[in-house]
Amino acid sequence: MNYRFAGRMKRVPESFLGELFRVSAVPGVISFAGGLPASDCIDVDGIAEAARQVFAEEGRTALQYSTTDGYLPLREFIADRYRRRLGLPATADEIQIVNGSQQSLDLAAKIFIDPGDAVGMERPGYLGAIEAFSFYEPVFHAVPLEEDGPDLAVFESVIRDHAPGLFYGIPNSQNPSGTTYSDRKRRAVAEILEGSETVFYEDDAFGELFFDGRPRVPVKRYIPEQTLISGSFSKIIAPGMRIGWIYAPAPILREFNLAKQAADLHSNLLCQAILNRYLRTHDLDGHVRRVAAVYGEHCRLMCDLLDDLMPAGMTHTRPEGGIFLTAALPRGVSSMEVFHDGVREGVAVLPGVPFYVDGGGKETIRLNFSAVGAEEIVEGMHRLARVMHRLV
Amino acid sequence: MNYRFAGRMKRVPESFLGELFRVSAVPGVISFAGGLPASDCIDVDGIAEAARQVFAEEGRTALQYSTTDGYLPLREFIADRYRRRLGLPATADEIQIVNGSQQSLDLAAKIFIDPGDAVGMERPGYLGAIEAFSFYEPVFHAVPLEEDGPDLAVFESVIRDHAPGLFYGIPNSQNPSGTTYSDRKRRAVAEILEGSETVFYEDDAFGELFFDGRPRVPVKRYIPEQTLISGSFSKIIAPGMRIGWIYAPAPILREFNLAKQAADLHSNLLCQAILNRYLRTHDLDGHVRRVAAVYGEHCRLMCDLLDDLMPAGMTHTRPEGGIFLTAALPRGVSSMEVFHDGVREGVAVLPGVPFYVDGGGKETIRLNFSAVGAEEIVEGMHRLARVMHRLV
Repeated sequence: MNYRFAGRMKRVPESFLGELFRVSAVPGVISFAGGLPASDCIDVDGIAEAARQVFAEEGRTALQYSTTDGYLPLREFIADRYRRRLGLPATADEIQIVNGSQQSLDLAAKIFIDPGDAVGMERPGYLGAIEAFSFYEPVFHAVPLEEDGPDLAVFESVIRDHAPGLFYGIPNSQNPSGTTYSDRKRRAVAEILEGSETVFYEDDAFGELFFDGRPRVPVKRYIPEQTLISGSFSKIIAPGMRIGWIYAPAPILREFNLAKQAADLHSNLLCQAILNRYLRTHDLDGHVRRVAAVYGEHCRLMCDLLDDLMPAGMTHTRPEGGIFLTAALPRGVSSMEVFHDGVREGVAVLPGVPFYVDGGGKETIRLNFSAVGAEEIVEGMHRLARVMHRLV
Repeated sequence: MNYRFAGRMKRVPESFLGELFRVSAVPGVISFAGGLPASDCIDVDGIAEAARQVFAEEGRTALQYSTTDGYLPLREFIADRYRRRLGLPATADEIQIVNGSQQSLDLAAKIFIDPGDAVGMERPGYLGAIEAFSFYEPVFHAVPLEEDGPDLAVFESVIRDHAPGLFYGIPNSQNPSGTTYSDRKRRAVAEILEGSETVFYEDDAFGELFFDGRPRVPVKRYIPEQTLISGSFSKIIAPGMRIGWIYAPAPILREFNLAKQAADLHSNLLCQAILNRYLRTHDLDGHVRRVAAVYGEHCRLMCDLLDDLMPAGMTHTRPEGGIFLTAALPRGVSSMEVFHDGVREGVAVLPGVPFYVDGGGKETIRLNFSAVGAEEIVEGMHRLARVMHRLV
């Protein structure tokens, strides 16, 4: 039978990612290609105990249907943390629970993007956002990321000339680059946006994971009515429960709620209740500090090995937090070659290609330093070095 | 600030449902308005024990990221059940896990519907489908439901004249009517569809809940390549975990998987693992038989009371399964009046209005018989009878 799919399906970027992950899932391959948190950093016993309490004390309600906005005690916890940690005057009414940050991307695109609408992004930009947005057929305008945030001249011209409905950015430890916006650029971004019709989509998946433990001021602080923040427990507690949230002004949240209801009624209540119980019986600050310390060590180790082992002309970012860095390859070496030769050598990296909406990424690779341990980082970097020296 | 939302947001049906549920959530109100399974029918202890085993034996993997298609053992269980119960040659490769049936609706619309595309539905049609589809801006063509399924002449003319990309139906114990397609109409629907470009979306949320325990032959049996089936554990195990699935031909499932990945990467793995463990250590057939028996008794009780207590001119459907029936009001009585007077009297019903894409429903109400116990059904029907006698 000849199936007649919607036109938008042709706009979805070629999913060579699935292929990459299949290829790199060979036993023995050390993978820097994914984005998993360290399994050792997931407190399985603590979460199991929280689950036991939920079943014992509120099992029957936690297994029933619930409201679209999400489990109130969890939304209160999140709002309270914004108030205490970042000085943002959040209330539970401004929080909507979603299935991890990825669903925030889909729903935001659904409520904001008509086919042909302009959408601003960083260059390189997060591939999950590119994928989610593409279903709504926008025209992307990419703003180059510099060491301390977006190129402000290009950013200003995108906002002025194209009036995007959304600008999507990750100011804290960006995926894929690992870059963090400076305070100056946060203010400048807010000033340029002020008075425009562009909503700033501030993806904050990594803000809790700065190696120095110091929170950075969100752009939302400067233009609260014009910013929505998305957050997630995937990187700090556990991704398998698929619980994230959006924190947005009431008029945006209203549309968001409609879209969420139509998308899947509500996020799974059992995991919301388990997470809430876990968060209220454990020291999240301490947990996050321990996780960030582990990732900080991994990151320093990886950076040192890149400096020591790789051929001349290969450079890399130096993240202050998060789980990714990006390396630029020596002239003439292609990221797809590094990927294919790498898998044969037993090390997987992610070519930069899917992070670019306008071509590019052929000379960069993304490296993840959270999923694998120190020993594997050492061995994996030596394997990568052999590949690189062969290719230059 | 003036937010610039996408055009599709204006196409979303007025959500008076939220308002209705708020109004009817007054303490003391007996609600026939919702669609919850009986809380007593949820095996909290069994699910808690399954969760304990998952944490003990596979906690670390169940809390990590996973693949978009879903947890393989659960998909195998579902496929195996299709083979044994309905004689459909399903394999795990043809199953995609989603967040309850509602997400199947959203994703199917996303992959099949361009703005302005024709979509066929039953009249009345399931409001969750109307909501989900509306975001993709289709033109709805509604086919009247008769006692034994769709009006075949209208069905045929919709398929021939409008060539919808999708026809969405609920052959088993439809929501809201409670109607079940006869075998004759299932075959006729398949024959009319054969050779057309229309995919039949066979929503099977209630197929396990026939009061006589006898499975009905799915339309997919007759036109397998042209039918996708959606199913859900919400009505038979527990809705709070938000686990459903789609069973579709490979070319459809491929697009579905792309859309699911962009929408939220994957459904929560922890609940998939818990459900799988529960299903493999419990007697699902026995459980479903017990639940269907309870709902069957509730349904007969409600039907008897409607016959005995309501004024002349009020009629109702006689479901063979599921959790809903629809009552037609005596001439001149409006469903919104019954709703408002009902809440004052302490009983909530759902006006038929949101189930019609082309006006209608002002003279019908949907009644749910799963969420409340027998005593409440008796008391609630007496309250409703007082309202009805006042209004005629």
